Amino acid sequence: MVLGHESSGIISKVGSAVSTLKVGDRVALEPGVPCRRCERCKEGRYNLCKRMAFAATPPFDGTLAKFYALPEDFCFKLPDHMTLEEGALVEPLSVAVHIVKQAQVKPGHSVVVFGAGPVGLLCGAVAKSFGANKIIAVDIQQGRLDFAHKYVATGVFMPDKAPAAENAERLRKEHDLGDGADVIIDASGAEPSIQTAIHALRDGGTYVQGGMGKNEITFPIIEMCIKELNVRGSFRYGSGDYKLAVELIANGKISVKELISGKVAFKEAEQAFQDVKAGKGIKILIEGVKD
Amino acid sequence: MVLGHESSGIISKVGSAVSTLKVGDRVALEPGVPCRRCERCKEGRYNLCKRMAFAATPPFDGTLAKFYALPEDFCFKLPDHMTLEEGALVEPLSVAVHIVKQAQVKPGHSVVVFGAGPVGLLCGAVAKSFGANKIIAVDIQQGRLDFAHKYVATGVFMPDKAPAAENAERLRKEHDLGDGADVIIDASGAEPSIQTAIHALRDGGTYVQGGMGKNEITFPIIEMCIKELNVRGSFRYGSGDYKLAVELIANGKISVKELISGKVAFKEAEQAFQDVKAGKGIKILIEGVKD
Amino acid sequence: MVLGHESSGIISKVGSAVSTLKVGDRVALEPGVPCRRCERCKEGRYNLCKRMAFAATPPFDGTLAKFYALPEDFCFKLPDHMTLEEGALVEPLSVAVHIVKQAQVKPGHSVVVFGAGPVGLLCGAVAKSFGANKIIAVDIQQGRLDFAHKYVATGVFMPDKAPAAENAERLRKEHDLGDGADVIIDASGAEPSIQTAIHALRDGGTYVQGGMGKNEITFPIIEMCIKELNVRGSFRYGSGDYKLAVELIANGKISVKELISGKVAFKEAEQAFQDVKAGKGIKILIEGVKD
Amino acid sequence: MVLGHESSGIISKVGSAVSTLKVGDRVALEPGVPCRRCERCKEGRYNLCKRMAFAATPPFDGTLAKFYALPEDFCFKLPDHMTLEEGALVEPLSVAVHIVKQAQVKPGHSVVVFGAGPVGLLCGAVAKSFGANKIIAVDIQQGRLDFAHKYVATGVFMPDKAPAAENAERLRKEHDLGDGADVIIDASGAEPSIQTAIHALRDGGTYVQGGMGKNEITFPIIEMCIKELNVRGSFRYGSGDYKLAVELIANGKISVKELISGKVAFKEAEQAFQDVKAGKGIKILIEGVKD
Repeated sequence: MVLGHESSGIISKVGSAVSTLKVGDRVALEPGVPCRRCERCKEGRYNLCKRMAFAATPPFDGTLAKFYALPEDFCFKLPDHMTLEEGALVEPLSVAVHIVKQAQVKPGHSVVVFGAGPVGLLCGAVAKSFGANKIIAVDIQQGRLDFAHKYVATGVFMPDKAPAAENAERLRKEHDLGDGADVIIDASGAEPSIQTAIHALRDGGTYVQGGMGKNEITFPIIEMCIKELNVRGSFRYGSGDYKLAVELIANGKISVKELISGKVAFKEAEQAFQDVKAGKGIKILIEGVKD
Repeated sequence: MVLGHESSGIISKVGSAVSTLKVGDRVALEPGVPCRRCERCKEGRYNLCKRMAFAATPPFDGTLAKFYALPEDFCFKLPDHMTLEEGALVEPLSVAVHIVKQAQVKPGHSVVVFGAGPVGLLCGAVAKSFGANKIIAVDIQQGRLDFAHKYVATGVFMPDKAPAAENAERLRKEHDLGDGADVIIDASGAEPSIQTAIHALRDGGTYVQGGMGKNEITFPIIEMCIKELNVRGSFRYGSGDYKLAVELIANGKISVKELISGKVAFKEAEQAFQDVKAGKGIKILIEGVKD
Repeated sequence: MVLGHESSGIISKVGSAVSTLKVGDRVALEPGVPCRRCERCKEGRYNLCKRMAFAATPPFDGTLAKFYALPEDFCFKLPDHMTLEEGALVEPLSVAVHIVKQAQVKPGHSVVVFGAGPVGLLCGAVAKSFGANKIIAVDIQQGRLDFAHKYVATGVFMPDKAPAAENAERLRKEHDLGDGADVIIDASGAEPSIQTAIHALRDGGTYVQGGMGKNEITFPIIEMCIKELNVRGSFRYGSGDYKLAVELIANGKISVKELISGKVAFKEAEQAFQDVKAGKGIKILIEGVKD
Repeated sequence: MVLGHESSGIISKVGSAVSTLKVGDRVALEPGVPCRRCERCKEGRYNLCKRMAFAATPPFDGTLAKFYALPEDFCFKLPDHMTLEEGALVEPLSVAVHIVKQAQVKPGHSVVVFGAGPVGLLCGAVAKSFGANKIIAVDIQQGRLDFAHKYVATGVFMPDKAPAAENAERLRKEHDLGDGADVIIDASGAEPSIQTAIHALRDGGTYVQGGMGKNEITFPIIEMCIKELNVRGSFRYGSGDYKLAVELIANGKISVKELISGKVAFKEAEQAFQDVKAGKGIKILIEGVKD
């Protein structure tokens, strides 16, 4: 099976009904096409479509190919001043946009993001563009916290081996969060992060699970109940997310260049996958073969 | 400390600024008074007020007393055709109203309620009054299921010892819930109920934790994440809940008389508490001493 | 051009990809198919699609034909106990469902409906099924008010020649609406109705324009502003409306039979149109020709 | 009667229950105290309280006094780096915050603001801080448009004598708004502005009436209806608005200094009122008498 779902490209052919794109246009590719007919599609939540054809998700091939066919409305034209490299980063940025929308981040909110990998960093950047007042990055690697601080976070926090409730209390105190954060996003998938997050939220706060870890975890359900938290999932991206992600890069509100650690030729792709898995760099771009 | 927080009574004295109540009026008592000044109070979620003075919650005495002082706006006048007995049931009905609001039940929804005790039964009744199409009661006691079916449920389900995902699948199939229920409310607090509920919801569905059990449970977090569920807590009752609860009884949309298993004199109250704890009856009313 | 957009029918042929319908199934027809690709479609508001192909709206023919082609997801199967006559009424009921959703009617609300024609009556019925507490029908014909009262309204009101603010005050007093109604729906399109409605709403109330009258009217904009009203339009029907309308009839929550004044053969259709225009009857059904 | 409701000050005395403020603290004054007990107050919309005691609104005196008594929770402490002059501007900024919240401005939205006076300018600034992508200022004075462009607008528009629909079409075209703007705010109160705004919105867009003009205007109600617009009022400010306004100034997201045209001693206040009324300057501050 062909891999790949974070891609940009150049239009090489258009169907007769296409009216907004032409050969040569540079586009970001939204790599999943829903059925457009089920209840979820028709209520505006097409990312939950059961018949979604998503790149690199069996039986569908991915985008690491010379040509890739996609409907017009899933190709997002890049403005002239935006590079194809930035276009390839629209995918992870759209993941972050969707998470932050699920988190219902409002201007003035304090937002804590667990996990300072690519998605966590981008969640912080999106939260800032949504008007969040405080953005606290949490990670267990100092290097990632340093990067997060420089990139977007207004503060950083490294949890220790203490129980979740204690780490939560230290987080609240060190960052002047009063009764707790308005919003917490988990982009780590780690069980202690999730537990700490539930304890660190204020009454009526919102938690979004962005990261994927163990199927089941020990969860402080009563804490969730009596604080009337909103605990929400986030899955891929949907209505309006790609459009907004392109705009956020295009109008300079979010910079993604810092997240690009390198660029390799297509034949070196395998090595790039291994490098990232080994923690070398944040995102490595794979360059396609030109005709 | 004085116990009691599910009460109705007769106004015996009013302050000089009271304009909507007079001596002799029969009222349901909302037994928690918030500070009215904090952020939660001023944003309309006073049930989350940290300075709430709630009956029978230390250091505050409860309502099982001859006289009880309460601000005008926390006393809800009963219409003439509504009894004081019904008035005392406004409290648990308000708990259910709040849960069902948290669950964002919409007309046409399929709603599953785990736990067929008083709160679970009332959640079913409130969901029906909100326009729910299917109301499935889940319990492990056949007698409670029989009562639920007669009282309000359109269907009932008894889980077995199978894993949560299997019980969830059987629930979906037996009750023709397609990809899953729109809304599931847990009024049991039991770990297997919570797990089954998460598996039995459709993508984008809503879960509300109404029941109180263990502080921490094993929770299928990835299932929650990829289905983009809303998982929400519910704590007591707040803005508009008591008013709506009185109306639902007054206009005949919900009948609470069936839930009253008996009535005892004040001096027999202790025995009544023990009886209910032992599973004898649903709600037993304690009658106050008249002057 | 062929007229008709309120129709039910029997499936005579299905495409190879159709999986939920078969020849002989009886269905209600949702008579407008959107592009499924524009921003409005993908955000769940397909009724606002600019490329909608709507029956009997040029250049598209209507449904008063022997055969009519429609995508599977716009055909709604009728349960066995529901008649084709009831199926034809699903269209106006869906209009009412959409209006009441736009009005954000919540359980306990007081709802006033201006205009007691078919759509106004159905709005009252839908509001009741959504849990509205009071439903006040307003019209200038006593016969229509009498019908409304018998059909669904908890109260009726006939405005007089007084200014809008005065009629509004009388409406509030006669029906014990306190500071005003929670929700007002206009299904009349008449300028004095709209003005009276704005004056009769409580602070923070919601108004929905359902009826179509003059393009421009004199509107009390400052009253709207300082009471922070929500004033909303409603156009046709969208996501989930047809499904809910079928369910409301199927489960007996709304009866539409009373609204059917008669049934004529297809060749008498013209006379039926003229009769309804002249105020004779509410809805007259036109029967198709069977093979 | 004493005038004044846009004020900051220094705490001169605190009651025994006050815990978050002390003598000498510099605060912005939210000048209206609600009853805290009515339905509107308890549902989080205290600005709609019928028993609001609002400064300079009979029978209540205003804030242009040496001392002014206010509950703790209506005094908002200014951080050290924020001046009392900026503190006095929190009031009009809160008006703008409330309008933009009513407008449900979301990141990526195109927002048009009619009227480039103080409130209109601040609405633009708040919309930007909420993530709006385009902010178009509309006015009939070139000088005000120039200021708006420099201050916050991404584009400006001067309507001409043409009918509203024509000005709307020109606005859409000149500023590449596609089918129309996502959000339009009127801060002018002028009838042609309101009419143009309704025509210039996209289907499903939101309009907020912020400005106060004639009680009644000619309103394109059918355009509103078939585009399913949200038309909303905005009245003063409420839950969270003052807090957010202070933060927006404090963290540098909004600069209000540019809006201060001058500062006068208390005895010159009358002249200052006349100057502003005559169009000289945007905001003139009146300095209090120090002990």
